[in-house]
Amino acid sequence: MHTIEHSFSGKKVNYYFNTEFIYLDQLIEKENAIIITDENFYSLYQAKINSWEVIVIKPGEENKQQDTVNFIINELIKKQANKKTCILGVGGGVVTDIAGYVASIYMRGVSFAFVPTTILAMADAAVGGKNGVNAGIYKNVTGTINQPDFILYDYDFLATLPHEQWCNGFAEIIKHACIKDAQLFSLLENNSISNFKNDKKLFDEVIATNVQLKTAIVIKDEFENGERKLLNFGHTFGHAIENLYNLPHGHAISIGMMMAATISEEINNFYSTEKERLIQLLKKYQLPVSIQYNPDKVFEIMQSDKKAANNSINYILLNKIGEAIVQPISISQLRDLMNMQQ
Amino acid sequence: MHTIEHSFSGKKVNYYFNTEFIYLDQLIEKENAIIITDENFYSLYQAKINSWEVIVIKPGEENKQQDTVNFIINELIKKQANKKTCILGVGGGVVTDIAGYVASIYMRGVSFAFVPTTILAMADAAVGGKNGVNAGIYKNVTGTINQPDFILYDYDFLATLPHEQWCNGFAEIIKHACIKDAQLFSLLENNSISNFKNDKKLFDEVIATNVQLKTAIVIKDEFENGERKLLNFGHTFGHAIENLYNLPHGHAISIGMMMAATISEEINNFYSTEKERLIQLLKKYQLPVSIQYNPDKVFEIMQSDKKAANNSINYILLNKIGEAIVQPISISQLRDLMNMQQ
Repeated sequence: MHTIEHSFSGKKVNYYFNTEFIYLDQLIEKENAIIITDENFYSLYQAKINSWEVIVIKPGEENKQQDTVNFIINELIKKQANKKTCILGVGGGVVTDIAGYVASIYMRGVSFAFVPTTILAMADAAVGGKNGVNAGIYKNVTGTINQPDFILYDYDFLATLPHEQWCNGFAEIIKHACIKDAQLFSLLENNSISNFKNDKKLFDEVIATNVQLKTAIVIKDEFENGERKLLNFGHTFGHAIENLYNLPHGHAISIGMMMAATISEEINNFYSTEKERLIQLLKKYQLPVSIQYNPDKVFEIMQSDKKAANNSINYILLNKIGEAIVQPISISQLRDLMNMQQ
Repeated sequence: MHTIEHSFSGKKVNYYFNTEFIYLDQLIEKENAIIITDENFYSLYQAKINSWEVIVIKPGEENKQQDTVNFIINELIKKQANKKTCILGVGGGVVTDIAGYVASIYMRGVSFAFVPTTILAMADAAVGGKNGVNAGIYKNVTGTINQPDFILYDYDFLATLPHEQWCNGFAEIIKHACIKDAQLFSLLENNSISNFKNDKKLFDEVIATNVQLKTAIVIKDEFENGERKLLNFGHTFGHAIENLYNLPHGHAISIGMMMAATISEEINNFYSTEKERLIQLLKKYQLPVSIQYNPDKVFEIMQSDKKAANNSINYILLNKIGEAIVQPISISQLRDLMNMQQ
């Protein structure tokens, strides 16, 4: 185990890396806690959590909707959860997003913590306090920004993570490397998923690096007025195609990063050699780099995105590998740039 | 017009007392704003807001539910509301509670402001940042604590406020007097609703006093760890009977204050002469002081209340008129005390 503590707006968050699940007994009063998890986790690890109160939700992005929030709220009322209850989100990004949201609104806010069990949740979704649910195909329309008390990382859960979820999770790790950390990008180039599967120390190092990188950005700009926008690299186009074509989040972001890299090449002097490195890296981590899509539909969704305002969209572009900027692009120019990719 | 500004956790709130609605044009960019109001206000004052984007919801406590939130969220998506949108809640406490909640979760939080149009909203509901909706009969189960940018008080809207809503609103004003301000209590004793209806200056003074009193408490304890609990005087029993018997909020709180005063007399040496003053004052403001109720049902709801934790309820009791305390009462003792009132 190794730990770090960071302070956000009036709140300290503790990170317990490489720590066994059972250590939760030291961190939380079980009688005041309720685990939220999904059917996937529950069917595999029921024995690990049978001494806890548990609410089990349906898995997957398609259930990251208000209906699931309503279900959990009713379960909390039935279980007489009160202001002292601590909610523990155990699962992937959908679970931590929903659990964090429910904890932020139930009785106007109760305490909460996460045990992320996928690469994507460990490196990204569980970190930084953003939570929420989709409204139909529109991503994260309702939610809050609110930090958990702690995040516990037990890598043993990854033994049952399907291989495609490893690839999926590495999309966000590649994103972090692209926007902030050329050294991490090289490390990813020099390794592969099987290295990370077989070398817990190397894996732990990468996860801790990602958490530090994202946390440093979030601490500077918790409520996304500036630098935090960089974390949206690949997400403007990515979010639009994700639910429209029912793609895994990592696949959507991978394709989104390619779109952003291509626009960067077009209007931001991003070198084509660097773009080629990104293509090769995404392919190495078995991520898709293109998609057939309907530009009208995708464009309509992009205009409804949180990143859109006043006839322009704050697009995240690369100067070079490891350095990104926020670039407002007018809706009409963006439309032209996207047509060029078709 | 007179104004004050208070700072909450990282947020300044401006209060514009005795200010015409049209002054909003100075405070807010109309093209980025959306008004949320209810059918009652809309049918009376449509002409005043026809240059604004408006979302109209069904009125009343029975519509302070998640369904209404879903409706508003969908309307906001349709209107392409974005992170720069300002939501303006114009109406009574139900409207400001829902509008504040929607603004706190839409796209993880957009800015918002209120124009309260009832006594209850002016003196209490719109002030202090608590928002949310009920879950069935359970009050304010989901919500947040989040401050508006400003609150504008235009007393002209009270010309159409039904008389019973005047009484209803004065219940919260009497509550404030009971817990913190013996002088305000005397002022209320020495006046009546008709005085306040006919004397705008006197009325303005009372509203500003109430806002200051509540704000001072909230600034000390925004997230209700201590002193803010005092504002729940009358609300533990009050909330339980409110939705169970479909009572106006002020009526429920009036009866709740009587229950709390009686328990105060029983276990906190609150003088019976003071209790008698409270009875007379509530009657003067045409508020009920008792109700026939089903103790089992009421007790069940009280146990699910946000104020309940670990087999006791934090009850707000009076030491004397103008001074209240938080007193944890065990569930079993409370049950005995309530039985004594039957």
